[in-house]
Amino acid sequence: MKSYEPVHPKYKEYTEYKISLNRFMHELGFVIDVIRPGYTSGYLVFHPKHAQQNGWLHGGITAAILDMVEGFAAYSLVPEGQQVFTVDARVAYYNPGIADKFYARGWVDKPGKRFHFCEGELYYLDNAGNEVIVAKGTSTMAIK
Amino acid sequence: MKSYEPVHPKYKEYTEYKISLNRFMHELGFVIDVIRPGYTSGYLVFHPKHAQQNGWLHGGITAAILDMVEGFAAYSLVPEGQQVFTVDARVAYYNPGIADKFYARGWVDKPGKRFHFCEGELYYLDNAGNEVIVAKGTSTMAIK
Amino acid sequence: MKSYEPVHPKYKEYTEYKISLNRFMHELGFVIDVIRPGYTSGYLVFHPKHAQQNGWLHGGITAAILDMVEGFAAYSLVPEGQQVFTVDARVAYYNPGIADKFYARGWVDKPGKRFHFCEGELYYLDNAGNEVIVAKGTSTMAIK
Amino acid sequence: MKSYEPVHPKYKEYTEYKISLNRFMHELGFVIDVIRPGYTSGYLVFHPKHAQQNGWLHGGITAAILDMVEGFAAYSLVPEGQQVFTVDARVAYYNPGIADKFYARGWVDKPGKRFHFCEGELYYLDNAGNEVIVAKGTSTMAIK
Repeated sequence: MKSYEPVHPKYKEYTEYKISLNRFMHELGFVIDVIRPGYTSGYLVFHPKHAQQNGWLHGGITAAILDMVEGFAAYSLVPEGQQVFTVDARVAYYNPGIADKFYARGWVDKPGKRFHFCEGELYYLDNAGNEVIVAKGTSTMAIK
Repeated sequence: MKSYEPVHPKYKEYTEYKISLNRFMHELGFVIDVIRPGYTSGYLVFHPKHAQQNGWLHGGITAAILDMVEGFAAYSLVPEGQQVFTVDARVAYYNPGIADKFYARGWVDKPGKRFHFCEGELYYLDNAGNEVIVAKGTSTMAIK
Repeated sequence: MKSYEPVHPKYKEYTEYKISLNRFMHELGFVIDVIRPGYTSGYLVFHPKHAQQNGWLHGGITAAILDMVEGFAAYSLVPEGQQVFTVDARVAYYNPGIADKFYARGWVDKPGKRFHFCEGELYYLDNAGNEVIVAKGTSTMAIK
Repeated sequence: MKSYEPVHPKYKEYTEYKISLNRFMHELGFVIDVIRPGYTSGYLVFHPKHAQQNGWLHGGITAAILDMVEGFAAYSLVPEGQQVFTVDARVAYYNPGIADKFYARGWVDKPGKRFHFCEGELYYLDNAGNEVIVAKGTSTMAIK
């Protein structure tokens, strides 16, 4: 994960503002609590409403959360007033999502003027405290 | 879209049963009302809780719905008792999701013993009744 | 596959000119012989130099050919003087590439001002003359 | 990048043997010179025959090379006698490929019994010796 210089001084407030408007994220219960230039991370406390047919975390929620941590990572690295749109995104499902709490992080892997290429991971912690990656995301985010 | 012979006589009941267990789908309000061998389709009535920061349909919901219509299309074409898991999925975002009602369809593009390769589209109807594709999905579904 | 109106009268000459400059395509032996607005197709006569470790068509050649039919389909639908660059591409491998001759077609599935979303298929004909799809491609092409 | 224990003592010879059979790789001039469990890397000396229409490294070659370093990384981490097949692969193009020599590395990001999820990067070195990433790959490799 690379670290970047802030693109403008209020990158954090700007990203927080965009997050505050994201109604579905709040509906889901996903919380972003870390914002750095080109990086965001957060967590979801699992509730049965998040389940697919086996009672595990729904892959669609995994995709949605990766879209958010990657998209807001991109937002934290654009000039004020510019917007970010997902052009396309891939999610690879590494392990079933069976846990009480999930974590996710997204980052800009390659910044650009027209696009940011982003990546992300959703994971949980096993009993030994090791990260178990549930899914890995890669996406192309357009800036305009 | 190809049409397939049923793999077992109760493919519809089996898929409906799996759908009935999908808690997050019901939470979201997405309804699958057509099941054919290798194909499912349904609709979502838009509610503000489905919105991202601009008030449009959240890209994560689009990804989740595509995962469902593609995954259940795969379910409708596996031997009874077998399960379907998303291995990886890509979503390309064609147009912003601004509408009161959205439709989605998923289909098996290439069936196999170990995988079904699936595709899907989420769209709305414009005033002239034409489909406007919001997103196109492609995915690899494992069978076991 | 959609059909499109030409974006400028010399779309065919412009695309042919770009193709003529594509050195690796000629090295490979891939030939594009149909150009329509938003669509190109062509063929490759298989030679042992195209093989991977099992003697089948190399997946990297499949990816390269899909990139070309999709990219030149995009080229055939941009204003003269504009260029096309692959932003990202996914290839799903449906069947092993075992044949004497392969065909490929690429098309613009969703045109835009900044991007064209493209798709493509590489296939061969079985003894009954039916298409066997070796791989399906989806890509995001930037225009500038 | 994770490091793995060898799955069998002759993982290196087995991978080298598979590489030796890969005719297109030799045709292209790509050389793999490092093999570790779950990791391979190599280089390509640029020749004009590798060019696309602007004289830069052809995106199809980039995709082919990523497929190889990722696929052979997977080969280096399977039981002897098992084979690896690309199920699907995505390539994101970060920077134009303009250099005299290119390097590539591929690695298994998440190993499994039925699939290895792999990643890869193709890059060159700028005048200061820093890596410039031309493309990032992610793929699903089946084992059988």
